[in-house]
Amino acid sequence: MMSCAELRTLDFAEIFAASIIIRDYIVKTPLIENAALNERLGGRVLIKPEMLQITGSFKFRGACNRILQMTENERRGGVVAWSSGNHALAVSAVCAQFGIPAYIIMPETAPRMKIDGARHYGAKVRLYDRATETREDIGREIAEREGAVIVPPYDDLRIMAGQGTIGLEIMEQCRVLGITPDNVLASASGGGLVAGVGTAVRTLNPLANIYSVEPAGFDDLSRSLASGQRVDNAPGATTLCDSLMVGTPGELTFETNRNLLSDGLVVNDSEVKLGMSACFEHFKLVAEPGGAAPLAAILSGKIDVRDKVTVAVLSGGNVDPAVFSAAL
Amino acid sequence: MMSCAELRTLDFAEIFAASIIIRDYIVKTPLIENAALNERLGGRVLIKPEMLQITGSFKFRGACNRILQMTENERRGGVVAWSSGNHALAVSAVCAQFGIPAYIIMPETAPRMKIDGARHYGAKVRLYDRATETREDIGREIAEREGAVIVPPYDDLRIMAGQGTIGLEIMEQCRVLGITPDNVLASASGGGLVAGVGTAVRTLNPLANIYSVEPAGFDDLSRSLASGQRVDNAPGATTLCDSLMVGTPGELTFETNRNLLSDGLVVNDSEVKLGMSACFEHFKLVAEPGGAAPLAAILSGKIDVRDKVTVAVLSGGNVDPAVFSAAL
Repeated sequence: MMSCAELRTLDFAEIFAASIIIRDYIVKTPLIENAALNERLGGRVLIKPEMLQITGSFKFRGACNRILQMTENERRGGVVAWSSGNHALAVSAVCAQFGIPAYIIMPETAPRMKIDGARHYGAKVRLYDRATETREDIGREIAEREGAVIVPPYDDLRIMAGQGTIGLEIMEQCRVLGITPDNVLASASGGGLVAGVGTAVRTLNPLANIYSVEPAGFDDLSRSLASGQRVDNAPGATTLCDSLMVGTPGELTFETNRNLLSDGLVVNDSEVKLGMSACFEHFKLVAEPGGAAPLAAILSGKIDVRDKVTVAVLSGGNVDPAVFSAAL
Repeated sequence: MMSCAELRTLDFAEIFAASIIIRDYIVKTPLIENAALNERLGGRVLIKPEMLQITGSFKFRGACNRILQMTENERRGGVVAWSSGNHALAVSAVCAQFGIPAYIIMPETAPRMKIDGARHYGAKVRLYDRATETREDIGREIAEREGAVIVPPYDDLRIMAGQGTIGLEIMEQCRVLGITPDNVLASASGGGLVAGVGTAVRTLNPLANIYSVEPAGFDDLSRSLASGQRVDNAPGATTLCDSLMVGTPGELTFETNRNLLSDGLVVNDSEVKLGMSACFEHFKLVAEPGGAAPLAAILSGKIDVRDKVTVAVLSGGNVDPAVFSAAL
């Protein structure tokens, strides 16, 4: 996806700037804990519920930061994005709010509610056939024809910086509570969320451990961290976590994550379901499978949280009722 | 339940005092809206999600305000409360936090998770047989024997004042958003929540309309408002809203509500399920049936929300997975 942009790590100043650029448009999600869960785990576990974010996922932050930095002239040409889910909704919503044309490229097989959601925000949705077309080609063609700007889902420093505002909020909210996070967990698909959150948290507390969480079979980041270079997932794997299915770490995100992460954690579908169920029971929140992955990692003992302060970023809540009910 | 206490309306100053007494212990729940829902309804509808409150319901506020006003000597004797649900959890949790003995009287038929929940907080739970025993008698006996204070679920000015802090927060949060609520809805069982919220809101905006919401068959408050005096529900009714099954308005709560409420709204079980489902879809929140009742009233057109600002207090999220899944 990268071509000629500079390969460097995300800078804290970019996250701080993002927090100012987007602050009037986003929900500052609360930082919540539950006494019963803490007691069960023997440590303090706080969640950052980004399902309460506009469009139901953290993606709104990055899209907002990127799109608000477009010039007037660029805005007239519009925005092109490809995604089968949360990034599509986020880009559509930001564009709707600021009167910017949005072109969204989605697979014909994308969940109906996501396609309808993007259309609801007025985006022009171009469906494509995964077998015969590639979304990047379609996207570049539309961008050229319309004079539109491509807004990638993760491999972009301004997208990463927008997601990083979650890390800033975590540190501010922990400060109010008089605590310092020892561990921070965030899910990884392309890796933009954990790169942004980790950069913000580690800048303010260099002793914090940052962990990515991926579904089994889609643990490309975890294996890339171990091998020191970006590796692909083997084809054919399946997972309940539809939002965490990117096959290779991004170039820019990996450049940041390789120096930032303590480890890459991996959870299977039954652990994810227990995470969704715990989120329902203890926090009264709807987590999509990928959104519950960090809580799943904690509950299944992937890291030691005893006598520590651990923060789990729950990335989103866009899940079909049937999938949700099945997990409970 | 009342015996010799003064029969008067709740005072705004009591709510303001409560907000200071409990502020370090409660969650200040956010005030959230959803663009798609607003568009569908043609007005701004904001929710106050008390399922995010400690113990999963607004009841923690009132219990906290009442119990924190006990003297050191009273605290040693402990607290007695009867409830089949959210009030039991709230009293148990407050007592656990401040090291106060708690005696909770619950029907043998109460949901297992509620009984376990109270025990989890260290309360001594006394189960009783609804056919042969009355909880008030058991409660008074324990109170006398242990020198404990009875903390009623609603018919108490300090309980009502604690619930009223939700109304204060609504007005503060609306002010930040630059809006003024035209309509505020809250569910009613004994009527303490809507009395408290309504008093706070009407003091700061006398033009606001306050509505109670009750389930069909348990619309005693609605009929009491119409007739001008407290009337009972006919026996034998059933409802999905297990938390809204009190049979008669409280004496103190009705004294406040009779002069405060614009109208009493009534919703049936299928409307409640649509409310729970909308809460899942638009807000990613778990509402128990009674918790979704105000949203159900709005969605089923019980009041006109077009071009208005309407706030719905969602009272709690303690619901069994099976009941929740069935509603989706």
